[in-house]
Amino acid sequence: MDHIRAPFRGIAKDVKGRAQCYRQDWISGFTSGIKILAPTMFIFFASALPVIAFGEQLSSDTDGKLSTVEALASTAICGIIHSILGGQPLLIVGVAEPTVIMYTYLYKFAKGREDLGEHLYLAWAAWVCIWTACMLFLLAIFNASAVITRFTRVAGELFGMLITVLFVQEAIKGMVNEFNIPEGEDGALPRYQFQWLYINGLLGIIFAIGLLYTALKSRRARGWRYGTGWFRSFIADYGVPLMVLVWTALSFAVPSKVPSGVPRRLFSPLPWESNSLHHWTVAKDMLSVPAVYIFAAIIPAFMVAGLYFFDHSVASQMAQQKEFNLKNPSAYHYDIFVLGFMVLICGLLGIPPSNGVLPQSPMHTKSLAVLKKQLIRKKMVQSAKESIKRRASNLEIYGKMQDVFIEMDDGHTTISAARELQDLKDAVMRNEPGEGELKDRFDPERHIDAHLPVRVNEQRLSNLLQSILVGACLGAMPIIKKIPTSVLWGYFAYMAIDSLPGNQFWERILLLFITPGRRYKVLEGVHASFVESVPFRQIAIFTLLQLAYLLLCFGVTWIPIAGILFPLPFFLLIIIRQHILPKFFHPLHLWELDAAEYEEIAGVPHRHLSLSFTECETSQPGSDDGNDEVCDAEILDELTTSRGEFKLRCSFREDRNIQVHPESSLQGE
Amino acid sequence: MDHIRAPFRGIAKDVKGRAQCYRQDWISGFTSGIKILAPTMFIFFASALPVIAFGEQLSSDTDGKLSTVEALASTAICGIIHSILGGQPLLIVGVAEPTVIMYTYLYKFAKGREDLGEHLYLAWAAWVCIWTACMLFLLAIFNASAVITRFTRVAGELFGMLITVLFVQEAIKGMVNEFNIPEGEDGALPRYQFQWLYINGLLGIIFAIGLLYTALKSRRARGWRYGTGWFRSFIADYGVPLMVLVWTALSFAVPSKVPSGVPRRLFSPLPWESNSLHHWTVAKDMLSVPAVYIFAAIIPAFMVAGLYFFDHSVASQMAQQKEFNLKNPSAYHYDIFVLGFMVLICGLLGIPPSNGVLPQSPMHTKSLAVLKKQLIRKKMVQSAKESIKRRASNLEIYGKMQDVFIEMDDGHTTISAARELQDLKDAVMRNEPGEGELKDRFDPERHIDAHLPVRVNEQRLSNLLQSILVGACLGAMPIIKKIPTSVLWGYFAYMAIDSLPGNQFWERILLLFITPGRRYKVLEGVHASFVESVPFRQIAIFTLLQLAYLLLCFGVTWIPIAGILFPLPFFLLIIIRQHILPKFFHPLHLWELDAAEYEEIAGVPHRHLSLSFTECETSQPGSDDGNDEVCDAEILDELTTSRGEFKLRCSFREDRNIQVHPESSLQGE
Repeated sequence: MDHIRAPFRGIAKDVKGRAQCYRQDWISGFTSGIKILAPTMFIFFASALPVIAFGEQLSSDTDGKLSTVEALASTAICGIIHSILGGQPLLIVGVAEPTVIMYTYLYKFAKGREDLGEHLYLAWAAWVCIWTACMLFLLAIFNASAVITRFTRVAGELFGMLITVLFVQEAIKGMVNEFNIPEGEDGALPRYQFQWLYINGLLGIIFAIGLLYTALKSRRARGWRYGTGWFRSFIADYGVPLMVLVWTALSFAVPSKVPSGVPRRLFSPLPWESNSLHHWTVAKDMLSVPAVYIFAAIIPAFMVAGLYFFDHSVASQMAQQKEFNLKNPSAYHYDIFVLGFMVLICGLLGIPPSNGVLPQSPMHTKSLAVLKKQLIRKKMVQSAKESIKRRASNLEIYGKMQDVFIEMDDGHTTISAARELQDLKDAVMRNEPGEGELKDRFDPERHIDAHLPVRVNEQRLSNLLQSILVGACLGAMPIIKKIPTSVLWGYFAYMAIDSLPGNQFWERILLLFITPGRRYKVLEGVHASFVESVPFRQIAIFTLLQLAYLLLCFGVTWIPIAGILFPLPFFLLIIIRQHILPKFFHPLHLWELDAAEYEEIAGVPHRHLSLSFTECETSQPGSDDGNDEVCDAEILDELTTSRGEFKLRCSFREDRNIQVHPESSLQGE
Repeated sequence: MDHIRAPFRGIAKDVKGRAQCYRQDWISGFTSGIKILAPTMFIFFASALPVIAFGEQLSSDTDGKLSTVEALASTAICGIIHSILGGQPLLIVGVAEPTVIMYTYLYKFAKGREDLGEHLYLAWAAWVCIWTACMLFLLAIFNASAVITRFTRVAGELFGMLITVLFVQEAIKGMVNEFNIPEGEDGALPRYQFQWLYINGLLGIIFAIGLLYTALKSRRARGWRYGTGWFRSFIADYGVPLMVLVWTALSFAVPSKVPSGVPRRLFSPLPWESNSLHHWTVAKDMLSVPAVYIFAAIIPAFMVAGLYFFDHSVASQMAQQKEFNLKNPSAYHYDIFVLGFMVLICGLLGIPPSNGVLPQSPMHTKSLAVLKKQLIRKKMVQSAKESIKRRASNLEIYGKMQDVFIEMDDGHTTISAARELQDLKDAVMRNEPGEGELKDRFDPERHIDAHLPVRVNEQRLSNLLQSILVGACLGAMPIIKKIPTSVLWGYFAYMAIDSLPGNQFWERILLLFITPGRRYKVLEGVHASFVESVPFRQIAIFTLLQLAYLLLCFGVTWIPIAGILFPLPFFLLIIIRQHILPKFFHPLHLWELDAAEYEEIAGVPHRHLSLSFTECETSQPGSDDGNDEVCDAEILDELTTSRGEFKLRCSFREDRNIQVHPESSLQGE
């Protein structure tokens, strides 16, 4: 309870920490030059597409009261605010599934009350936002983010699974509706005759499954055997938006005899149509909301605040995992404060608020990690080659490279750089030029690549630019409206399936279906350490408990009005995890199944540590076998899950160099 | 030219060899009991489905003159004849793609001549069959099968690729036609209105792609991680017919408002309708064929005879690969003679003839290999366990097991059995019970499985029964007619894609698309030895030559009438391979790219042999790590291509035991 007694302490610390690097955040962005556009475009596409999809979901769930226009506007406005005023600029914000679900409940509730009605829906939602903002302010002021260490895997993955289930439900619901006349439409229109409806549905199946399949395939393009590295990277980074484009283009190949409106396309007003322009009047309507509803808004606000606090912090945490080696401080408390501010603005504008999103936030850090590495490497290779040309000694070569590294890597002292570059030094010093085996001789291109620690280009420019681009999408609405709705249902299914690999909860469910005799197959592949260290019975019980809990949570979302309480079980779970689970499971097993930071610190037997090391090493294949096409992004891809989380948390601090030590990986093979 | 001077020598030798085991062929079949039904059903489904598909192709290409009924009848009749009178009972016969192509050319030719016409088509085809039969008799009598060693990979794989390309062409043509009114149909029918045609096409896409995807997935079921071994085996063996069933069932889920005839289903008369009953009159019409056409029939007959000779021999060869350890002699010469006899009968009945088919023939041997192994193993494990219970010494345990092996494996002397069982003996003798490490102690279940040589239950019953079942399909035509045509187009695509993996020609084409920096990925996986031993430039040139040749062959099939000469390039290729290629490629490289038996005997440097061994070992993962769910079928599946060919021909004779030696594979990991 220490943090409650010291209000503003967290915010003050965050502001102080970030203020020191604020100027640098912009300078780093601008000095990166044109190259900053690569991560910008990557995150823009990764961010805009789900927002469009959620906008369409909102539109169909709120009878068009809110649509893609509002979702894009909120993402752009909040993104710009966060990139300029926010604490951690690596965090990406956007309208996400929890917001859509909450706003749908609010709509259903408002629609059902005579004294509220559709008319006052947005005004009432504004009150919810006001209460939410107040609660977020309080959470920030009283340092609630100190509990971030309590957010363990188990709650995060359960929430992820619930979202997955809801995505699948959305995709199926959407597909079934393609065969029916949409609510509130005139059934006498030619396009709603049986044969055209049926054609619409069949085309929908083809487009949805086509998008799903091609998107899943293109996501894995980096590992393809065929094509050049550039081509594979391009497909892996931009394949999904590209596939949306391809299937949208294909949808225009429908013969002209088919009436217009088949296949169905995005339903959304244009931003400059009157439907989208009434938002300035929402704040004016707020006082028309009956007082009882103003206070009743506290209940949903409580849920929204909890959800946002949880989601925002976890997204921020994922973007700052220790494996990324970030240099600038975190700003959890201050970011919650900024979030409250953004919720307030969105509420008053009558648009759904944005919060930190997964997996875009860690994807952002990842794409910047690659960028920075390329910049440093280029200079180091250059310096090394010059030294070799001058027939310098190995020590000189290394000295020059270390100088470059310190110069590029601002804020590094010679001592810390020397420690981080120890491996590289070893590689350089191993053989004098001209003697020894050819294979071991120092090769700048190869060894620098393998031994360079991860560096992220921490700046605010890419986040700002991508937010502006999302805003620019509003101008492109006439084009975005051409996307068939069925392509979006396919996209929902894609998001669901793509989120599964790497989710340990899902992997444990699959494990239950493997017969004992086949489990060696799991051990043969890359696998989490719990598979080896926790008895199968314990894994099964833990997983079944989690599954039952998931069904409970999913069931809650179906309850007509009380469904708005669906985040409650998640808040409960954090308490259950901390106080009840340790009574039923061995601490070691629990640690393996659900590593929590506060338990890690308590000390872990070294056996587990060394196990993790081995896995980390083997998960970097080809890092030292002289091929130049295993690009950084591919290595990072292999190390992280679809959510952007590092697969194998090694939970070591000082021993980091072991991970990038290639000799031991060669021996291990 | 030695074999021309000694007519009938080959046939006489074959007859003598097979006569000795003819009685045993039946006894072995009947003593297998009910278990014989497993391989019978497996081959029946693998055999009947393509015949149905080819029947539909014939029907659409010959305007219904021939249909599925005739294709099934021919397969059944020839299958019964071959299983009773044929030499090698492991060989499966059926109507295959070359026959369909030939009969289509014959139809197009006959249709275009006024004095022949559709009316005399079958009578003229009967003349072609008569000439073909004569040529086959001559080939058999003059021991032409002696040239079987000249049939190298290059010709076989090129032919396989041409068939693949033709399958794809057929699938695409079929799918496009689903959107159009079929030839000769009344366009005024309601089901040929635009909207229903379009619905038919869209449903067709869904069914075809659905079948293709699910069939490809289910084929690989044996390697799935999930489900019990029994379930996975069932899906792998019967998944494809099951999927045809599933998609056919789904096609009945079309709403009742859709007019009947959408989706389109198999077009075929019933066997007892007049359309199918005129075949007895074909022989009568033969004399109505003008004399000039009777003699012109020699040209197509020459092609058919060549194709059949090639196809039949290669299929037979694949069913008798030396890795199967067959005990009974081959009968290539005699089988060609029997084939001539079958062609004659089919011709006179006016049905398309059958010949040996791939991949069903090696699949047949494979399924029987499993059966025999299970029988022997069961008894050996029993005997070993009894001995262990009696606390017998290791030598006694082994002695008992060898007795069982000799007893079960008819015609085995003690000496040869001892040699084949050497590995098993080593495993038994390594540790006295009670001492040594636990892992190395003799475990009957585990070690017998790993060390037992492959044994095939060679008999005639399974072939006979599956042929009778194919015949029974004629009675089930009213059910078979429910299959949507689009499902068959998907099946054609499935057959095409399924035939690619393991075809080295295809794998070399893919290799050309791998950038140099990614080639290590090929070396990491299971790969043919040529990847390591032949310079990339040589591989590329060889492959591009083959590709150009393939385009040439495919081009020939498009020539209106001369297209009937399409087998010619293949006959030429055998000569090119033997006399021209060796001048441009290093013998060692050529041997690696296209191993021919006659060159293998000439002697190969030992370096290559040891390389191949290593690969053979590593391709048997988990053979000794104590899990009982890697069943025989799975190991055989991993070792063979989709065509049923052994992937890695080790080309050794005496050293066979090295391949099944698991200790070296453990060390290699």
